[in-house]
Amino acid sequence: MRIIYDCTGADQGAEAVLAGIQSYLEDHSLEGILLGLKEELEPLLPKYPEVAKRFRSEYVTEVILNTDEPAFAIRRKKDSAIVKGMRLLKEGAADGFISAGSTGGLLAGGLFLLGRLPNVSRAVLPVYLPSSTGGFLLLDSGANMDCTPEQLLSFGKLGTVYAREVLGIDDPKVALLNVGAEPGKGNEQVKKAFELFSNAPFHFIGNMEARDAFFKDVDVLVTDGFAGNVMLKNTEGVAMFVTGVFHRALEKFGADDETFLKKSGGALREVKKLLDYSEYGGAPLLGLKAPVIKAHGSSDSTAFKNATRQLKNFLDQEVISKFQQEG
Amino acid sequence: MRIIYDCTGADQGAEAVLAGIQSYLEDHSLEGILLGLKEELEPLLPKYPEVAKRFRSEYVTEVILNTDEPAFAIRRKKDSAIVKGMRLLKEGAADGFISAGSTGGLLAGGLFLLGRLPNVSRAVLPVYLPSSTGGFLLLDSGANMDCTPEQLLSFGKLGTVYAREVLGIDDPKVALLNVGAEPGKGNEQVKKAFELFSNAPFHFIGNMEARDAFFKDVDVLVTDGFAGNVMLKNTEGVAMFVTGVFHRALEKFGADDETFLKKSGGALREVKKLLDYSEYGGAPLLGLKAPVIKAHGSSDSTAFKNATRQLKNFLDQEVISKFQQEG
Repeated sequence: MRIIYDCTGADQGAEAVLAGIQSYLEDHSLEGILLGLKEELEPLLPKYPEVAKRFRSEYVTEVILNTDEPAFAIRRKKDSAIVKGMRLLKEGAADGFISAGSTGGLLAGGLFLLGRLPNVSRAVLPVYLPSSTGGFLLLDSGANMDCTPEQLLSFGKLGTVYAREVLGIDDPKVALLNVGAEPGKGNEQVKKAFELFSNAPFHFIGNMEARDAFFKDVDVLVTDGFAGNVMLKNTEGVAMFVTGVFHRALEKFGADDETFLKKSGGALREVKKLLDYSEYGGAPLLGLKAPVIKAHGSSDSTAFKNATRQLKNFLDQEVISKFQQEG
Repeated sequence: MRIIYDCTGADQGAEAVLAGIQSYLEDHSLEGILLGLKEELEPLLPKYPEVAKRFRSEYVTEVILNTDEPAFAIRRKKDSAIVKGMRLLKEGAADGFISAGSTGGLLAGGLFLLGRLPNVSRAVLPVYLPSSTGGFLLLDSGANMDCTPEQLLSFGKLGTVYAREVLGIDDPKVALLNVGAEPGKGNEQVKKAFELFSNAPFHFIGNMEARDAFFKDVDVLVTDGFAGNVMLKNTEGVAMFVTGVFHRALEKFGADDETFLKKSGGALREVKKLLDYSEYGGAPLLGLKAPVIKAHGSSDSTAFKNATRQLKNFLDQEVISKFQQEG
């Protein structure tokens, strides 16, 4: 497997990427290209000799920031890891690309430089949220603001393939995010999508309210990037708010916060996942011609290792060719 | 003050309404009309002699259910409390209407039977959510699915008047729910609304992400009824989910749930509010020609008393005429 890594996008710097690759190399073979700023990457390489041996370094001089306007940045910052990475991926220099850089930059780069699959009208960014029945894939989580019912249908197909092939869920259950469970509910977009979904080749279980997604059995929850992003960020906000209230309650109760966390152990792990939903691995961009994984900005070496595993799974299951058949 | 009460819509039955009115009557004067099913209401009246003395009872034979299609139900169930209540309100038989019945039924009844204010294009349903800076009014919370930017502007105006006059907030801060804080973010609807809001007669503070609404200083958060309802129900779902996780953690920690709740006291009250957002009073329908308060289906006598207080405030502050001036 050959992977391109963006070493300019992680909050923790290029070392988190190198340490993640080195950890992966302990059990697996891997080679590829490191894209980084010379002054940052070059001094680190002697510390990671296995990585330096198997990877070629290419230096860039620019970084696309979260505050940059994505489409503009892709045109102007040609010597950035995102632009170079997408170009190299398109040329076949590697099998996949992992970056913790700007989500917007990756999407714009993916669309303009790498390109969509011919049967897919939009690339989509799913996010996996935990729930009391395990968890569900919410897509789109913010890549596409205005979507047609046909595009929502495409998200349902891409989400189904991804849930089945990468998450290992047999016959994934797909629902439409809506304001009520009954058919006929919702805005014009969702009402039309409901009809398309009812005749779709995937396992459609109907409309679902945001509340129920955390308690009912659903694997893929489809919505446009506006409502999806509202739901995602609201999830984070409410989880933070409720956690804060509980911590104050614990204080009043007289329980030491640290002792509580230690004794209650794994019980709070699910809340941590809600608070930092993409820490665990990364979010794939679905619908592009080659696999691109967006790692969380705050990713550490473990997160980069997990993103690498995720990419391997993506390649092993031939997800791209299944998208072409079923997308 | 003369109020019409729907005694058919509360999960706890007509007695919750009567007990709420009786409790309000201990400190205030009040008269009006009770709309109820004869077999339920008539036997209760002797238990509430003060209420029976000041209120006229009118019996109905039908109830509009949450599962009924609202516009259809309004036309077909003419002998329901919602239809009768709206008609009586329109005729001037009372100053306001309180019902815990079907939200859709009340909205349809409000629009078709009572009517909108001439300068308002849609009636809107706000909901008040707690936050770490106090709380904020989210509107629309689900009455209007597809909204134009101009309608969002109208929601901003109605929300401003309501927050100032009824909630007592000086110069309420209004934000647009969006996927990012920067101008230029969002779907076409929100981008256009941003321009309108920038020149609006209220205190517009910009775009706001759902996450930030729980931590930043905002009084009125404007969105369409689809995204608003997703946010509202997601808030409930995540709060329930996180609360469940904490309860399991408490168990593992060895703290008795009840003792914990008692000792930590008021600290958890905010979570309860998130879980049952409209328990405290009710949600007003803004933009109609007369005040209508939608009480929560699970309202008890305290909730009906609070809804009555809210309606008094609404009338005292002459909110309807301010809507006409500023709406």
